[in-house]
Amino acid sequence: MKIGILGTGMVGKAHATKLIELGHEVKMGSRTANNEKASEWVKANGEKASHGTFTDAAKFGEILFNCTKGEFSIDALKMAGAENLKGKVLIEIGNALDFSKGMPPTLVPSYCNTTSLGEEIQKAFPDVKVVKTCNTTNALIQVNPGLLKGDHDIFLSGDDNDAKAKVKEILNSYGWKSPIDLGGIVTSRGVEMMMPVWLQLWGVYKNANFNYKIVTQ
Amino acid sequence: MKIGILGTGMVGKAHATKLIELGHEVKMGSRTANNEKASEWVKANGEKASHGTFTDAAKFGEILFNCTKGEFSIDALKMAGAENLKGKVLIEIGNALDFSKGMPPTLVPSYCNTTSLGEEIQKAFPDVKVVKTCNTTNALIQVNPGLLKGDHDIFLSGDDNDAKAKVKEILNSYGWKSPIDLGGIVTSRGVEMMMPVWLQLWGVYKNANFNYKIVTQ
Repeated sequence: MKIGILGTGMVGKAHATKLIELGHEVKMGSRTANNEKASEWVKANGEKASHGTFTDAAKFGEILFNCTKGEFSIDALKMAGAENLKGKVLIEIGNALDFSKGMPPTLVPSYCNTTSLGEEIQKAFPDVKVVKTCNTTNALIQVNPGLLKGDHDIFLSGDDNDAKAKVKEILNSYGWKSPIDLGGIVTSRGVEMMMPVWLQLWGVYKNANFNYKIVTQ
Repeated sequence: MKIGILGTGMVGKAHATKLIELGHEVKMGSRTANNEKASEWVKANGEKASHGTFTDAAKFGEILFNCTKGEFSIDALKMAGAENLKGKVLIEIGNALDFSKGMPPTLVPSYCNTTSLGEEIQKAFPDVKVVKTCNTTNALIQVNPGLLKGDHDIFLSGDDNDAKAKVKEILNSYGWKSPIDLGGIVTSRGVEMMMPVWLQLWGVYKNANFNYKIVTQ
């Protein structure tokens, strides 16, 4: 499949690399066409890897990943162009963090509690099928759940069931056996609000290699 | 030990009953001295059980539990009287929910993201040793972790390490082997913000008998 990845940071690179390994064609997109990190990534990942602007990646992908920083995601998606996103599945991984009051960051208040980044992206781009997932654990675990001992969980939120089924297939191919479907895109609120305790747990364990498992009866 | 429980709802009753089983003397407190639910609970729980007003329960307890609804907790603690709380450990279990916009509720915005109920209680009653815990799972699991299969986790937040050590002992006596100490009372933010996804998971499982486990490498 042709996949466009918006964002060239740790999260974007982790998914891009995993998707190449799985045999997909991947174009990474950033603000500028000559992004150095993306260029290095292309050199290391063979002929199925390419890079360009946000617009280039959005045009290229049948499925798109938003791996930009949450606080800038709507701007990045506007740069990609609503017409290039239209009708496509957008896998939305962002957490919108506010570092303005120091460490640890809070969530950006305008994306928190009574709304969420996932919901605001869906509102801003109503013709895109937004599926929120993966934002509750670190990038390396997102694409390789086997890094941790035993079972643990990942979540899905989105209004379009067909889109969620496609995202589930990709997550299955990463090794996630049973992603938990929380419901509509409104449920992005819950998973985004798990970020503050995640940051606290990072402080406790002194590393980011952990995830949540939902234990039932 | 003499323990005062503020609040006679499901959470208050679960802790009160468990603490009686463990041999403690427990006084439940509510707005009025003749609360019917508390009176029935006393009849069912023998001579170590008693009830009265918030003030009566606060005066009685060497350790106090706040099991009032989060959105009204500061008012309830004012009714208990700052002078009756002074110097004591307050085990704070509340979640402050806002039902004004329908279901599912959001968190009360003034207790969310940039602050929390735990922090605001500590600020309002600086002479109390507030320890936030147990708010991330349902009342029956809070007092009986063995209800679920395998290991799962509970968290602690508070500024006073001696107070946290006392709360840890109580949690150990409930069956929690290793509560995760997240740090100061500021970390109440993280655990309170886990409530929205908890409500969503309740919708997924159609029952409240689940909890989080933190899975590491």
